[in-house]
Amino acid sequence: MRSELNIWVAGGDLRQAKLAELLAADGHTVHTYALDCGEPLSGVLPESGPAGAALADCVILPLPAEEEGGLLHAPLWKEPVPLTSLLAPLRPGQLVCAGMAGPGLTALAEARGLILRDYFAREELAVANAVPTAEGAIQLAMEELPITLHRARVLVLGCGRISRALAPRLVALGARVSVAARKWAHLAWAESWGCTGEHIGQLEGWLCGYDLVINTVPAPVLGEVQLADLKPGCLVIDLASKPGGVDFQAAARLGVKVIWALSLPGKVAPVTAGQCIQTTIYNILHEMGV
Amino acid sequence: MRSELNIWVAGGDLRQAKLAELLAADGHTVHTYALDCGEPLSGVLPESGPAGAALADCVILPLPAEEEGGLLHAPLWKEPVPLTSLLAPLRPGQLVCAGMAGPGLTALAEARGLILRDYFAREELAVANAVPTAEGAIQLAMEELPITLHRARVLVLGCGRISRALAPRLVALGARVSVAARKWAHLAWAESWGCTGEHIGQLEGWLCGYDLVINTVPAPVLGEVQLADLKPGCLVIDLASKPGGVDFQAAARLGVKVIWALSLPGKVAPVTAGQCIQTTIYNILHEMGV
Amino acid sequence: MRSELNIWVAGGDLRQAKLAELLAADGHTVHTYALDCGEPLSGVLPESGPAGAALADCVILPLPAEEEGGLLHAPLWKEPVPLTSLLAPLRPGQLVCAGMAGPGLTALAEARGLILRDYFAREELAVANAVPTAEGAIQLAMEELPITLHRARVLVLGCGRISRALAPRLVALGARVSVAARKWAHLAWAESWGCTGEHIGQLEGWLCGYDLVINTVPAPVLGEVQLADLKPGCLVIDLASKPGGVDFQAAARLGVKVIWALSLPGKVAPVTAGQCIQTTIYNILHEMGV
Amino acid sequence: MRSELNIWVAGGDLRQAKLAELLAADGHTVHTYALDCGEPLSGVLPESGPAGAALADCVILPLPAEEEGGLLHAPLWKEPVPLTSLLAPLRPGQLVCAGMAGPGLTALAEARGLILRDYFAREELAVANAVPTAEGAIQLAMEELPITLHRARVLVLGCGRISRALAPRLVALGARVSVAARKWAHLAWAESWGCTGEHIGQLEGWLCGYDLVINTVPAPVLGEVQLADLKPGCLVIDLASKPGGVDFQAAARLGVKVIWALSLPGKVAPVTAGQCIQTTIYNILHEMGV
Repeated sequence: MRSELNIWVAGGDLRQAKLAELLAADGHTVHTYALDCGEPLSGVLPESGPAGAALADCVILPLPAEEEGGLLHAPLWKEPVPLTSLLAPLRPGQLVCAGMAGPGLTALAEARGLILRDYFAREELAVANAVPTAEGAIQLAMEELPITLHRARVLVLGCGRISRALAPRLVALGARVSVAARKWAHLAWAESWGCTGEHIGQLEGWLCGYDLVINTVPAPVLGEVQLADLKPGCLVIDLASKPGGVDFQAAARLGVKVIWALSLPGKVAPVTAGQCIQTTIYNILHEMGV
Repeated sequence: MRSELNIWVAGGDLRQAKLAELLAADGHTVHTYALDCGEPLSGVLPESGPAGAALADCVILPLPAEEEGGLLHAPLWKEPVPLTSLLAPLRPGQLVCAGMAGPGLTALAEARGLILRDYFAREELAVANAVPTAEGAIQLAMEELPITLHRARVLVLGCGRISRALAPRLVALGARVSVAARKWAHLAWAESWGCTGEHIGQLEGWLCGYDLVINTVPAPVLGEVQLADLKPGCLVIDLASKPGGVDFQAAARLGVKVIWALSLPGKVAPVTAGQCIQTTIYNILHEMGV
Repeated sequence: MRSELNIWVAGGDLRQAKLAELLAADGHTVHTYALDCGEPLSGVLPESGPAGAALADCVILPLPAEEEGGLLHAPLWKEPVPLTSLLAPLRPGQLVCAGMAGPGLTALAEARGLILRDYFAREELAVANAVPTAEGAIQLAMEELPITLHRARVLVLGCGRISRALAPRLVALGARVSVAARKWAHLAWAESWGCTGEHIGQLEGWLCGYDLVINTVPAPVLGEVQLADLKPGCLVIDLASKPGGVDFQAAARLGVKVIWALSLPGKVAPVTAGQCIQTTIYNILHEMGV
Repeated sequence: MRSELNIWVAGGDLRQAKLAELLAADGHTVHTYALDCGEPLSGVLPESGPAGAALADCVILPLPAEEEGGLLHAPLWKEPVPLTSLLAPLRPGQLVCAGMAGPGLTALAEARGLILRDYFAREELAVANAVPTAEGAIQLAMEELPITLHRARVLVLGCGRISRALAPRLVALGARVSVAARKWAHLAWAESWGCTGEHIGQLEGWLCGYDLVINTVPAPVLGEVQLADLKPGCLVIDLASKPGGVDFQAAARLGVKVIWALSLPGKVAPVTAGQCIQTTIYNILHEMGV
């Protein structure tokens, strides 16, 4: 990767602003567009129109990149920015990095011969984001529970990236953690971390022992039967992306408190989240030989 | 300790209410007085006047026990309860356990020939409370910082009970932790936990590296010079009891954010805090051969 | 899985004997063959000829199952046991579980219509075995190094199952750990565990900082150039299966101490290793509806 | 502390030799006497007679310093070195640092007007040495037990410095740890580390559950009754200094395997042990304003 690049950062929220500052701090020339934090960003060149993007080594769109109606996701900008006009100045072959590139953006980039890379689809970002997600879940649990996580009985549903970051941290804080999963190998991982492994299909009858249940599985795992089995006061945190893993209506009927916590990295640790994206974009640039 | 005691719980807040429930759940006969949570406490006998306390094996006053004017600390009670009238029915030789027994209560107990034990003065409660205090500090840091504790640079001032619970937990969460202390042995403990040991008298010039500073020393350690040395955005959490360890006025002038977090156990984990008191009272009863 | 099975355990070493005892302790009827530990195994029926195996719900062969010449691996038996004669009494459809089933055993089982399952090929056993492997590597490092692992600088090569069990344990013991890998996601995992991620292709020039290098990659990663870059006294532990990852001849020339540690679970923790196999066999039986 | 001192290192074993090298590496002028490792020490001046010690800023005697008969502890020296002749060239007011200074050395130093400091008596060295002691105990347990420490049931007797270093490390490795102590506060610390606290006076009847018992209490805690209660195969490691805490004869009668492991730092991690002494001597010099 070249040590001085011309990077153009468009749209997004404070995380995107922080990303611009981090890139500038590394010595790159950074422009922003449609990103107004109310005060100048440290080391970043003043806002300019989209025309300058024609010279950029890399254009970075936010996470998510696109809003309904073919618009750039730009919550800190006063007026709507159509992606078509944003990308109009770019030349074929220019690199655009975007988070969660939808079909509109993908078609547009293809039509214009742009190289589009979705950084949110990359494994290393998902792994890195698991840490702020885990910390966010710990923060929520600490805020809501009247007991300490130390010695709390916690059930983590699923054994993917988030659970792999979360379960060992809960153990380190002194919680007694069970991990429920379907694959034998996942149960073996749970044991390796000092947790108990439980079959996710056989939870009923055992759920009454937990003070906290954290779901990471994006499929219906906590239905009415399971929720009814929880002990009074048990907190449920659902980290799974839509449609989530909890029957929210049943929970409301049963009086079970459920927090559906999505997109935690940008909310609980925007600066860290910006750094994770920065690393991923550097990896993309490195692979492309920029 | 006898397995069925007659215990009388007076005054206090939700923590005291939870303590009453925990004692009842262990099989003791528990009465409350001046403690109205709006709903009945599980397993606890209905409120009654103070007269019944004459039969109690142990009367438990809250933490703190006493308010100005010789009153019981009873925030969940509709009218003031003078300690004199509260203790009037008790017979000489009866056991009263109280948290932070002040001179008023002490004199009163002595005059009436009561056996007064201050559970808050006991080492095991201070050690046990260090865990919810540490979790409370971690929660505050997670709430306030835009970065994760993972890889954050943290300075813990002091090496007493709270630091001994806090520093290893921060390390376990992936923070890079320095512990500042005065005694060589404390610096050796810091190294043992995987932290760096720093002399607390030589902090100036080194403070700009930290994202978070947590003070546990109840003496002026973060004055204007030290606060001015912090990097912009560094969060300061002061866990030290009054007068605290931070020059709050200088911090305000310098724009340093300081959170003075006192009495965390009862705030962040009232149930755990109640359990800690329960264990301590059992220890007292055990020692007295009750 | 039925709670009382007829299990027949043949060949193997102390680990296999322990496995027989563990199965018996769970209430199964267990016979052994070609497994003489010099004293009776607790709860296990006396040795008998292979004929009785015809009634077994499951026949368990050791890890490895097979020796050159079509023989059962039976180091605790006085005479060679051909697999053909061992399997002769079995009826078509009977279940045989074996570790590292070679082509000879596989062909034999197929010819006789037996259901052969290789428990060593299963992911959950590999995950479970990573724990004793990690502990074995830690034990070797403690034995050989004149320094503590606490504050030692350690490089772990590779980011597979063994590294995932090993690196967090080294961190927990206070070592400063780098993990070298090729995939970006693996470097992100290293960071998540509190390690530093290093590109495995760019180690030269950075190897002189380590007190200990542990390889898990079964490919040539520590050649003459890398070995020459190590500091004097650096210990190398190679956990990779044949051909290993170290140029052993170059290491000998350069005076670098290398320990090639294979099959650690059976060596350092035979009882735990037996338990891991037991769990895996139960999983197989569960899947087959036995 | 001055950055260049004249230091004279006498007697001792490889740990003392390593200490000399570490002091030389820090830029000090270092002489040795009665310390022959067979090869020159890096950066250290050649052996010379004791006369030169008259110019030393600090004379460092080994740990232990003294052998029976008023001799220097000098296992790497060909002939006995009386402390009287060793200290003869020193002038009144010169500093001598020694480990475990006995009455002979103390009297001698006083008679000659030397300033004698016993570094082994200092708290910070005891704290620092607890880490290699803990690692040594872990190494022994890994070597002797046929199971992993992961999921092993371990009882640690005592709650002093060694237990404070050892118990959290065992927990981090996945062991299920109980800590037995007498003081309520120590039981609270055990809970804080994620262990179970047990009253050390009430062990009988509960000892059959452990795979490993590690004693740190230098008083008879494991007598015949307790040893008889251990389960077959339970390993006992006694870390307590003489007379130890185990009835070794009863253990032999009962067939309980006991390892009495003394002075582990110098044995399992001599370089780290040398560093610990170096730090302590620097602290002494710092306090004396040298």
